[in-house]
Amino acid sequence: MHRYERLAEQLRERIQGGYYQAGDRLPSVRTLAKAHGVSLSTVQQAYHQLEDAQLIQARPKSGYFVCQVRERPVLPPAGRTAQRPVEVSQWEQVREGTCVLPDTELYHLGRGMPDIDAPTLKPLMRSLSRVSRRQNLIGLNYDTLHGRPELREQIARLSVSQGCRLRQDEIVVTTGCHEAISVAMRAVCEPGGIIAVDSPSFYGALQSIRAYGMKAMEIPTDPEHGISLEALELALEQWPIRAIQVTPTCNNPLGYTLSAERKRALYALAQRFDVAIIEDDVYGDLAYAFPRPPTIKSFDEDGRVLLCSSFSKTLAPGLRIGWIAPGRYLERALHMKYVGTGSTATQGQLAIAEFIREGHFEPHLRRMRRQYQRNRNAMLDLIGETFPSSTRVSYPEGGFMLWLECDPRVDTVALNQRLMREGIRIAPGVMFSATGKYRHCLRINYTVLDEPVKGALRRVGEWVGEMLDEQPAAVSAAALPA
Amino acid sequence: MHRYERLAEQLRERIQGGYYQAGDRLPSVRTLAKAHGVSLSTVQQAYHQLEDAQLIQARPKSGYFVCQVRERPVLPPAGRTAQRPVEVSQWEQVREGTCVLPDTELYHLGRGMPDIDAPTLKPLMRSLSRVSRRQNLIGLNYDTLHGRPELREQIARLSVSQGCRLRQDEIVVTTGCHEAISVAMRAVCEPGGIIAVDSPSFYGALQSIRAYGMKAMEIPTDPEHGISLEALELALEQWPIRAIQVTPTCNNPLGYTLSAERKRALYALAQRFDVAIIEDDVYGDLAYAFPRPPTIKSFDEDGRVLLCSSFSKTLAPGLRIGWIAPGRYLERALHMKYVGTGSTATQGQLAIAEFIREGHFEPHLRRMRRQYQRNRNAMLDLIGETFPSSTRVSYPEGGFMLWLECDPRVDTVALNQRLMREGIRIAPGVMFSATGKYRHCLRINYTVLDEPVKGALRRVGEWVGEMLDEQPAAVSAAALPA
Repeated sequence: MHRYERLAEQLRERIQGGYYQAGDRLPSVRTLAKAHGVSLSTVQQAYHQLEDAQLIQARPKSGYFVCQVRERPVLPPAGRTAQRPVEVSQWEQVREGTCVLPDTELYHLGRGMPDIDAPTLKPLMRSLSRVSRRQNLIGLNYDTLHGRPELREQIARLSVSQGCRLRQDEIVVTTGCHEAISVAMRAVCEPGGIIAVDSPSFYGALQSIRAYGMKAMEIPTDPEHGISLEALELALEQWPIRAIQVTPTCNNPLGYTLSAERKRALYALAQRFDVAIIEDDVYGDLAYAFPRPPTIKSFDEDGRVLLCSSFSKTLAPGLRIGWIAPGRYLERALHMKYVGTGSTATQGQLAIAEFIREGHFEPHLRRMRRQYQRNRNAMLDLIGETFPSSTRVSYPEGGFMLWLECDPRVDTVALNQRLMREGIRIAPGVMFSATGKYRHCLRINYTVLDEPVKGALRRVGEWVGEMLDEQPAAVSAAALPA
Repeated sequence: MHRYERLAEQLRERIQGGYYQAGDRLPSVRTLAKAHGVSLSTVQQAYHQLEDAQLIQARPKSGYFVCQVRERPVLPPAGRTAQRPVEVSQWEQVREGTCVLPDTELYHLGRGMPDIDAPTLKPLMRSLSRVSRRQNLIGLNYDTLHGRPELREQIARLSVSQGCRLRQDEIVVTTGCHEAISVAMRAVCEPGGIIAVDSPSFYGALQSIRAYGMKAMEIPTDPEHGISLEALELALEQWPIRAIQVTPTCNNPLGYTLSAERKRALYALAQRFDVAIIEDDVYGDLAYAFPRPPTIKSFDEDGRVLLCSSFSKTLAPGLRIGWIAPGRYLERALHMKYVGTGSTATQGQLAIAEFIREGHFEPHLRRMRRQYQRNRNAMLDLIGETFPSSTRVSYPEGGFMLWLECDPRVDTVALNQRLMREGIRIAPGVMFSATGKYRHCLRINYTVLDEPVKGALRRVGEWVGEMLDEQPAAVSAAALPA
């Protein structure tokens, strides 16, 4: 631990212990440096870290102040799921959401699209342009199956922040995290096999399970504490599960981060039942806490974790650059990568490698984390104002997506149809379930929160209200969350 | 038929009928225009077409002359294959060939890599660079699942030259032809199912069959006439085959083009047995004949042909832009595309669309066809001079790859090991078989034929000779091609 980290830790304890309270002014940098016998820059770094964690905020010419602690909203409870492996349905809903051109749709509130208009992305555009101008032809050539070494070097370097120490040759570059997950599933599970998933779960992973002829065992998942380890253990005892597929950090769609302790416990379960873990970390670098939470992969002793990630949420999804660190399954993963796409597009890899190497990635991440955290708070406020009071909302610890649970009488598939007539789209909850559950839930994106988006969100809230008014108040059993 | 095409056809008949002989000077443009009552430009277009077909050549200030007709070399006979569906092996060989960085290997003679250094590709680099500079953000965004409409519009337009009239909405853009084939197989065949393939066959397709738990039924294939329709019919009668996977135009690795008549017959077989055809047309636009041969897809009446192609052989493989026209299997293909990679990288699509729209594709194709045809001839000569006389060579009608059959005592896997010590690689024949046949065969690339490549080729010939000398002349039955 660095000196500034120790200092930040001490200050954090004082804030959380109530020694400094919301609105209090913190000691000046000079005072603190003197008191602790450290340099001014050490104090500044410590303050910086607390700012990142949104515990304090700087006010120009006045110093640092303790932030108002936001109350956690009332969270939706863990969903109940079928207690057996099931076939995945809901392709129609997913298809509808992914067959739309991004530039023709005005307010696609449902999609997992980051803000690509940030000024901190400009150096990436320059790198992309340079890679083509250079005419060194590498960008036009077939890549090696593993991916460009320049990029794998940077990914390996970045992995330290997740608590791993990946080597270049443990990493395979993929066409987005989507291909990474697809490769992982085929590497560890045969057709007919069972994969346990958190529920609600990323629809891309669910659809892969369907397409490869596998079955999904949905495990109830709490919006605050994550996947139920008790239910998972029971499932592992009862069924020949081959792998556990989870998004434990900045979960999609619920937004929680599994604590390090629970990550360890989940890993221990996988060891005990000798199954693989497919860890989707695609939002992990967008955790609002700094330093970012560790991956399950960082606890991996015997290579059973296949870590999947990408630059689609942190940089730009259109480049389709992801990666997998498949542990002991490297050889099978390489084969599955080969048969899926041969190799990954080269130019995006070279440009991203340059962007990271030149030091643009960290400042960009910092900016985006703050923007998304700010927008989360603002959107929670807006939802509180414009949605029916029966609406329950998740409290994301990272990423840029909210999960809303409406009154059970609201059908969000029908809601989406109505909204689309006004050029607005949300992601209906059924997409996140293997069997069409969460029909009264929806996911919305808060990357950008300008007036038109606020207007669109208000329309969503108004429609939810109208749909409630149309329905009789008596709730039939069938409409309750199954 | 245009007027110039009719004129070209007449001249072609006169050349092939012996009226004009090799070395003869053809009538001047002016004379011919007068004689046929057509414009000067019509004659010029006709001559242009015959030049494309390498029947005549222009000599500066002297006019047009009939080319020397090249004698077809002695071709290797059709390989014998197992008469039952088999599991695919040989991943180790394929892995070795695809895990190498293109820029660290000097003479990778085995790879399916086009010449990306052609001056006619410069506008593509400019487009790629522009797409990034523009900052209109489309290139950074998720694409729709079908692929960018700008590009699909151009692909649909180009399909006319193959005798199809594809509509934009029948096309799905993929991460190279590799993903197209992978999608096609999963769209038409379940795990455990059987796919009939030509033999030798593209190793990428074979490895997909393996990875998705399917079996390959290898059909004997003649280097001149292509896949044996008789053997195929027998196989279709005997086994529950789900699809026929072929590369009927500029076949990889044999180089033949199935005649239109045989393509029709193959389609009729597929209809009779109600199976799908997966048509790999990735080299089709590089046919030396002009206009290019029709695809099987152009005969498709009921949507059973899944046409797979890409810009990897005509433009640049590093962009990983291919496509599939999956006919009646569109919905399943979209699902399989979705679970494999989500969507395709956007920038390469936009740049290629611009390159075609601005009229750069046709001139580029023309240049590459001529270069590759010229190089084929030169390489055949060189092989005649430097390889043992027992070597038999294919006679490609398009593309840029030769298939060599050495004396059965030559082991090309061992040959490759020896060559690699000198920084040279070939593609050993076993890669093109499901069960390690063609061990005495190899594939080499003739895109570029400069002195270093010629030197490398000579080394291959010398090593083949040395390996022959090491072996006793008596051939054991086991060493014969199975």
